[in-house]
Amino acid sequence: LFVIDAGVVSCHPNLANDIRAYFNHYTILSLVTEFILIPGGEIAKNNIKYLEKIFDAINHYGVDRHSYLAVIGGGAVLDLAGYAAATAHRGIRHIRIPTTVLSQNDSGMGVKNGINAYGKKNFIGTFCPPDGVFNDDQFLLTLSDRNWRAGISEAIKVSLIKDADFFHWIEINQPSLTKRDIKSMNYLVKRCAELHLDHIASGDAFERGSARPLDFGHWSAHKIEQLSNFEVLHGEAVAMGIALDTAYSLITRPFQKEQAYRIIDLLLAFGFDIDNPIAHITSTFCPLINGLTEFREHLGGKLTITILREIGEGMEIHHVSPFLLIKASDWLNQYCNHKLKIEKIGG
Amino acid sequence: LFVIDAGVVSCHPNLANDIRAYFNHYTILSLVTEFILIPGGEIAKNNIKYLEKIFDAINHYGVDRHSYLAVIGGGAVLDLAGYAAATAHRGIRHIRIPTTVLSQNDSGMGVKNGINAYGKKNFIGTFCPPDGVFNDDQFLLTLSDRNWRAGISEAIKVSLIKDADFFHWIEINQPSLTKRDIKSMNYLVKRCAELHLDHIASGDAFERGSARPLDFGHWSAHKIEQLSNFEVLHGEAVAMGIALDTAYSLITRPFQKEQAYRIIDLLLAFGFDIDNPIAHITSTFCPLINGLTEFREHLGGKLTITILREIGEGMEIHHVSPFLLIKASDWLNQYCNHKLKIEKIGG
Repeated sequence: LFVIDAGVVSCHPNLANDIRAYFNHYTILSLVTEFILIPGGEIAKNNIKYLEKIFDAINHYGVDRHSYLAVIGGGAVLDLAGYAAATAHRGIRHIRIPTTVLSQNDSGMGVKNGINAYGKKNFIGTFCPPDGVFNDDQFLLTLSDRNWRAGISEAIKVSLIKDADFFHWIEINQPSLTKRDIKSMNYLVKRCAELHLDHIASGDAFERGSARPLDFGHWSAHKIEQLSNFEVLHGEAVAMGIALDTAYSLITRPFQKEQAYRIIDLLLAFGFDIDNPIAHITSTFCPLINGLTEFREHLGGKLTITILREIGEGMEIHHVSPFLLIKASDWLNQYCNHKLKIEKIGG
Repeated sequence: LFVIDAGVVSCHPNLANDIRAYFNHYTILSLVTEFILIPGGEIAKNNIKYLEKIFDAINHYGVDRHSYLAVIGGGAVLDLAGYAAATAHRGIRHIRIPTTVLSQNDSGMGVKNGINAYGKKNFIGTFCPPDGVFNDDQFLLTLSDRNWRAGISEAIKVSLIKDADFFHWIEINQPSLTKRDIKSMNYLVKRCAELHLDHIASGDAFERGSARPLDFGHWSAHKIEQLSNFEVLHGEAVAMGIALDTAYSLITRPFQKEQAYRIIDLLLAFGFDIDNPIAHITSTFCPLINGLTEFREHLGGKLTITILREIGEGMEIHHVSPFLLIKASDWLNQYCNHKLKIEKIGG
């Protein structure tokens, strides 16, 4: 049974025929002829009717635990279909075919699925490894520039906490990545997916503890998405979150100014709107600060936030000062304005 | 956060105060003061509003992954609350306190949870081991005779496929079990739970294969429950299913007549209504036969049904003949009528 992101179908009009041709060739497999189309983006996870649509099809076509539910799409549709696959008949087999940079280099490789509820991201979900993940660069070619760029933020994130060499590689290759060079993108996707997978496989895959180092920059990102009514894409929100937590690392630790500049400069070079007012923290009443409580509540236990010791190495903290956050946000805002001025003069 | 079967509260009016007293004593723990009451029985799993009620409370009280959701109740409420715990925040900690014979000796010890959908039992659910299970015999004292008896069928079932000595013990202790001797019941519950747990821990806990030996007698039991609109209790349906599959074992294999008599006699001695017309298979159009297809579909792969080689040893078969099922049902019906006549003459 195929669940497909409606956005992907419109960009790849031959997709349905290609799938049918594949199954005509490999007759050992039998294909459910109806494809289940789901709109892409957070709407897929916000409205319960899309989950029901998938359950309906699983029931109607008698998809059982030895059958496969394959999903082709961006991260949100993957999360939704993964949740349906993990819970129908207590788990049917599941193949993910991610179609965006973000889902190929991050969520598609992971063990998480879920849907949103009570205005909270992934309030309901499970941990469940897929049976297979296929990353196909053909899908990346038709992405909008906005979606192409958005997913790069997760690669920057994982490089910052795990792999300084990879960060340096991204800095050098920023121009070719921006010019949509597919060879560079393939390397970025593969290295980022590797780093994510290594972390999951070696660590606390089911998150029994309170730490989640891969979520550097994410406490604010989740809240920014929600406050923007999901108009800010996840990857864009992560870029804003990285910038804010980089500034916080600078304000609270002996994190070198030059390293902070490099990070902010790279995000700006990609064109991330990290100075968007939605990410500004101007007072302790700022709703964005609630993102800290919600982040802690989702993981449970002690608040554990990852900031940077240096490029390539994260560190955990258990307290975040709202006043220093305001100071960090302020520093970031001034730095961005300063950079923009320089660019204007330069240009 | 406590989720409690409303039926248990009415039988144990001090329960809420006892829980509060416990948490007043152990102040290291903090108790959500509201108890979430759920009606007992399949209605809890059939209506989505009860699942939502638990999710609402988890959200409202900020229950997180390091908090515990404890549930006190029969199997249905346990299944429901277990599903909520397994999926809220992708899994919060979970303690089960089963209150019926059936849930103490079987489902409460297991790794399954779920709710019903599309008229199918456990269509949606997960495999998720609880953090703890407390079996307290105080809850058994207030059970109705019907519920006291119903759970005994799972002990008979597991003895038939795993442990001939245990079957013999049940035969000998049938009178004291029927007279509600709590010491005998405690032994029955413990041995049955042990056999279930050993099987789960050593075997295919997440049911990736097609076999499920613990489901001897269950392909028809699930369907009988559904056809009776859940007026037949699970344990009662299992007794009917055991009787039918015992008859099928006799009709299709060199299973000794004397062994079949012992099994049917024991079920009748406990007063199980195994000759109820709902369990009769009189033609190949009998809706009960669809239970085979639904059983296969739930597990996936090849149909795999456990029948008996002898008392204490199950065997797997992959084909069930509807014609021989009719014959088996017929034999069972005649045997029960014969037994009843003898009893009438005797009495």
